[in-house]
Amino acid sequence: MSKEYNKANPAKTVKVTFKESKPGEKEYQVTVPAGSTILQAAIAAGVHLQSACGGKGTCGKCRVILEEKDRRGTLPEESKYLNSEQIAKGTVLACKRTVESDLTVFLIEQKDAYDRKTELEAEHDYDLSPLIQKHVLQVDIPNTQDQRSDWERLTAKLPAIKKPFNFNRSIAAKLPQILRAASYQVTGVTAGNELLAVEPGDTRNSSYGLAIDIGTTTVVVYLLNLINGKIMARRALTNPQQGAGADVLSRISYVTENPAGLTQLQSQVIEALNQMIADICREKGINPEHIYHAVAVGNTTMSHLFLGIDPTYLAPAPFVPCFRQAVTVKAAELGLKILDNGLVTVLPLVAGYVGSDTVGVMLAGKVDELQGIHLLVDIGTNGEMVLVGKGRILTCSTAAGPAFEGAGIKFGMRAAEGAIERVRINKDVELEVIGQDKGKIRGICGSGLIDAVAQMYKAGIITAEGRMPNSLSNLAKLPPSLRRRVLNNNGYREFVLAWKEQSATGENITITQKDIRALQLAKGAVLAGIRILMKRLGVKIEDIDQIHLAGAFGNYINKESALTIGLLPQVSPSKIKSIGNAAGNGAQMALLSTVEMAKATFLAQKAEHIELSAEKDFQDEFLNALALEQNY
Amino acid sequence: MSKEYNKANPAKTVKVTFKESKPGEKEYQVTVPAGSTILQAAIAAGVHLQSACGGKGTCGKCRVILEEKDRRGTLPEESKYLNSEQIAKGTVLACKRTVESDLTVFLIEQKDAYDRKTELEAEHDYDLSPLIQKHVLQVDIPNTQDQRSDWERLTAKLPAIKKPFNFNRSIAAKLPQILRAASYQVTGVTAGNELLAVEPGDTRNSSYGLAIDIGTTTVVVYLLNLINGKIMARRALTNPQQGAGADVLSRISYVTENPAGLTQLQSQVIEALNQMIADICREKGINPEHIYHAVAVGNTTMSHLFLGIDPTYLAPAPFVPCFRQAVTVKAAELGLKILDNGLVTVLPLVAGYVGSDTVGVMLAGKVDELQGIHLLVDIGTNGEMVLVGKGRILTCSTAAGPAFEGAGIKFGMRAAEGAIERVRINKDVELEVIGQDKGKIRGICGSGLIDAVAQMYKAGIITAEGRMPNSLSNLAKLPPSLRRRVLNNNGYREFVLAWKEQSATGENITITQKDIRALQLAKGAVLAGIRILMKRLGVKIEDIDQIHLAGAFGNYINKESALTIGLLPQVSPSKIKSIGNAAGNGAQMALLSTVEMAKATFLAQKAEHIELSAEKDFQDEFLNALALEQNY
Repeated sequence: MSKEYNKANPAKTVKVTFKESKPGEKEYQVTVPAGSTILQAAIAAGVHLQSACGGKGTCGKCRVILEEKDRRGTLPEESKYLNSEQIAKGTVLACKRTVESDLTVFLIEQKDAYDRKTELEAEHDYDLSPLIQKHVLQVDIPNTQDQRSDWERLTAKLPAIKKPFNFNRSIAAKLPQILRAASYQVTGVTAGNELLAVEPGDTRNSSYGLAIDIGTTTVVVYLLNLINGKIMARRALTNPQQGAGADVLSRISYVTENPAGLTQLQSQVIEALNQMIADICREKGINPEHIYHAVAVGNTTMSHLFLGIDPTYLAPAPFVPCFRQAVTVKAAELGLKILDNGLVTVLPLVAGYVGSDTVGVMLAGKVDELQGIHLLVDIGTNGEMVLVGKGRILTCSTAAGPAFEGAGIKFGMRAAEGAIERVRINKDVELEVIGQDKGKIRGICGSGLIDAVAQMYKAGIITAEGRMPNSLSNLAKLPPSLRRRVLNNNGYREFVLAWKEQSATGENITITQKDIRALQLAKGAVLAGIRILMKRLGVKIEDIDQIHLAGAFGNYINKESALTIGLLPQVSPSKIKSIGNAAGNGAQMALLSTVEMAKATFLAQKAEHIELSAEKDFQDEFLNALALEQNY
Repeated sequence: MSKEYNKANPAKTVKVTFKESKPGEKEYQVTVPAGSTILQAAIAAGVHLQSACGGKGTCGKCRVILEEKDRRGTLPEESKYLNSEQIAKGTVLACKRTVESDLTVFLIEQKDAYDRKTELEAEHDYDLSPLIQKHVLQVDIPNTQDQRSDWERLTAKLPAIKKPFNFNRSIAAKLPQILRAASYQVTGVTAGNELLAVEPGDTRNSSYGLAIDIGTTTVVVYLLNLINGKIMARRALTNPQQGAGADVLSRISYVTENPAGLTQLQSQVIEALNQMIADICREKGINPEHIYHAVAVGNTTMSHLFLGIDPTYLAPAPFVPCFRQAVTVKAAELGLKILDNGLVTVLPLVAGYVGSDTVGVMLAGKVDELQGIHLLVDIGTNGEMVLVGKGRILTCSTAAGPAFEGAGIKFGMRAAEGAIERVRINKDVELEVIGQDKGKIRGICGSGLIDAVAQMYKAGIITAEGRMPNSLSNLAKLPPSLRRRVLNNNGYREFVLAWKEQSATGENITITQKDIRALQLAKGAVLAGIRILMKRLGVKIEDIDQIHLAGAFGNYINKESALTIGLLPQVSPSKIKSIGNAAGNGAQMALLSTVEMAKATFLAQKAEHIELSAEKDFQDEFLNALALEQNY
């Protein structure tokens, strides 16, 4: 297309085609304004590229491959994150390349987050008293002596304690027809003094709810039967907001910088949820209109984005959220594809970085019933810590996540197929990789990283301060099987976990000095936060009765490794307990029990938030907490 | 287009063009499925044809003119309602003609309802205490010691009595930006414990509301300043639902018979309102988002249609409404173009045919303060009667309207330009016609009809039983100027009010025997209803202290004529008082005063509804009330 044309048409558009690498795989096509980046086009096309930095060119994750004809040299940022082999193949960073004319782009194979151990949780031990109640009503038939309105004759039959019921126009709109078609025998669905639906006949056997855990990385949905409290299904999808960055700060700045960003990120997460809901309903043969309530948890940023509320001011100090209370809106208002009149509740939150997910963890951890001193730690993309005891609940948070979830780590990745999840170093390195085919190692996930660093420290490959030896004399102490794994890459040391022959990408999978530093910064922040909480409550390590590890990470982390690298206070490993996907469990509890729902508000209000950035001794504690070796 | 093509395309569409008769006037074009009637096309095009029967072919009102090339003989229904001159001009009934190929149709000139005497009402004598309140708030600026959410810091500054404020997602969505852009000084708009808006700075001077009177025939909107209670503007439009019939029963059956009918009629009335609101806001320089509350009244059917609620079961006995309580919904839910979060309240109603308009009349009539015995009569398309006294409020209704508003009357029409509104018969007939140009008489409106029949009776042209003499001996008693006006039309008598030379349509404007019968049926029903109420309350004519006539009709009716034809109990004319557009005034009062709003619910609940169709003595009273001459 000529320059002339381009000038005359400032709004010129181009077509971008994304192809999966395997033949016969899907293609995605999208039309975007000329000058858009490939990453922007991918987001517009609904193609999920990894992007840990949100398009800033500082993570090197959003790699795609160009056709030979479209290759035009290498950018400085690309030289930084791509090796010569990758560059030779046509690999570029999608966030750094703009599209000026129609373009075809090849995606680098990466399956969606692999769902490692999906078992539906065991029976719950709390009262089944959901907000949603169904009542079969034999409504009085009108006659000239009884000319009451349909609304009055219906609500007169509902339990007296909840009156008056709020008027609901959309129910009223169809009420006359429904009453008469059903010969005045209907089922009323209530939530407190809200009438959510009037259904013909007796539908008491069909009543469902959702518990939703909106992680920065993964969105999880549970379908629960509100009649018996049983979990009927669970689905997880990568949070499609990944395109706007892997961590909450990237997402916030994406919203702040893009006028349509808020709407876009909200609809992405709603769309992912709707896809899972539709799936589950199809599989279970359930009418989505019989799903009356969804209880969601997420960190404060995820909670804001889910509700379409501007998270801009969560980023700068003093990190002020727009709301903290439990919030309930109509499903239709969010576009969630359950009953339009259905309710969506986001559990209350504590602070800008202690969200409703942490309140869910407190519920699941039964914080109100705990005796003694208990520490709850939820490490996801962010780390939230809760210290319970002496009649108080203290909370704090740190931006722990990136390293633990693979961002900022050279070969870091989510706990997905091909990720190294366990490392043992005896004479040589032994690996456990997610998925069957060990020949295709793609990277290392959080639990693998902690294992690797702990084992490297124990094997003497790194010092207590986290330094990889760069003098040959130190290396000489290692057995040859390990020594050959220590490479010198342009003056920087790397430790090879998997040789390129085992690797899906054709390169050695290594732990770099920078990776170790990133992990130290992350774990140092968590440990310093915990120590600040302990100081404020006035407790010592020996006072701690139990450490509860929440989250998927908590499920898979090796307790000894966590203690070895000094991520947690040096308690006996027997005091460390995994409490599973506690945030999601908390959402389920609130869905099934109004007592638990009320308790969520109570716990959120009772929690005292310690803003670490405002604590004078945090800096000191942080510096002390960086070393791997920790004596207290 | 060939038959072949037609077969292959069952979904063939045709283009219908509606042209106003005057050159240079508007054209309307619409594409509809082949086989649609011209009336359906007109409704789809937003062209308002008169249609009293809702397309059943039984009123003869929906006249249009075809081009010469499109004329194809005359249908039996057309012969019944059209004279030979009209037929020769190409006049057809739009409801009886289907469109099979592209067609141009000429509209018969008829201006919109003429707004006879629009003066803005006088000062009110009730407290100004609107539901809508504005509060200037100096919100605390956050810091690390005060990490409360924006919602908390905002609502903490709102008056304490209303807490907790319901969470509003759409306000929260923008709250962080608004607070900071306004340096934390904002105006909160509240309605009880609902927060409707948060506006930057101090906007207390700009607060507006609407009072809406949804008549079956005319929709009226008043803009009120909520700061001082003043009426700033008034607009009226013909209710565009007219296309589905002139009376409520036609509209109900239209909804019952057409799957999309409810949505269609609702959006028609909302569209008319939005047009007037936009007009007013433009003229007054008001931001529609500063209109926070609309209070609407209408008969029960209009109230249901306005809210998009199925009115089907208002038609058959026992005439059960879907709701009777005051109902408040968000403006956005109805599509009303004021602040999206603004509230729309429909005042409570009493029964299937005693609507919120009657409750508005009770408010405006200050029914709770009246001493003695008072009768309130609101005659619109329907007639509602309220008898107040002895600590009780009795109500009833009759389908009075059609004759009074021109339907079912040969030359009946709305009180619009060209309508005869006053008739005196001395030696000859003297007329007063709405609008300046008396040469263009188009028909007769309700007050003119009552005058005409009263004067014809007084002049001896009709008997006390309402019969026009068909023997020459009776006619002989009339002066020649009147005698020549009594024509014999195929054996049926007609009395000429205006000769064809004066008439816009080129035909004599007459009162027929059938017209007189229609009026007798209508007024007989009203009078019988009043007498049933009087019996039930145990009062006699001499007990009545005052008769309050509400509505536009009450403004223009000649009291003596109303007494002459026996429409009202035979009280002294001095006891009859017009109370103006009382329904609309009641809506204004409820908008401006929460006391009046609460009173509306009190009055609606206190009112005892007498269902005339279920009263054994109604039939007798009705037969007694038919004669013009009434002695009690």
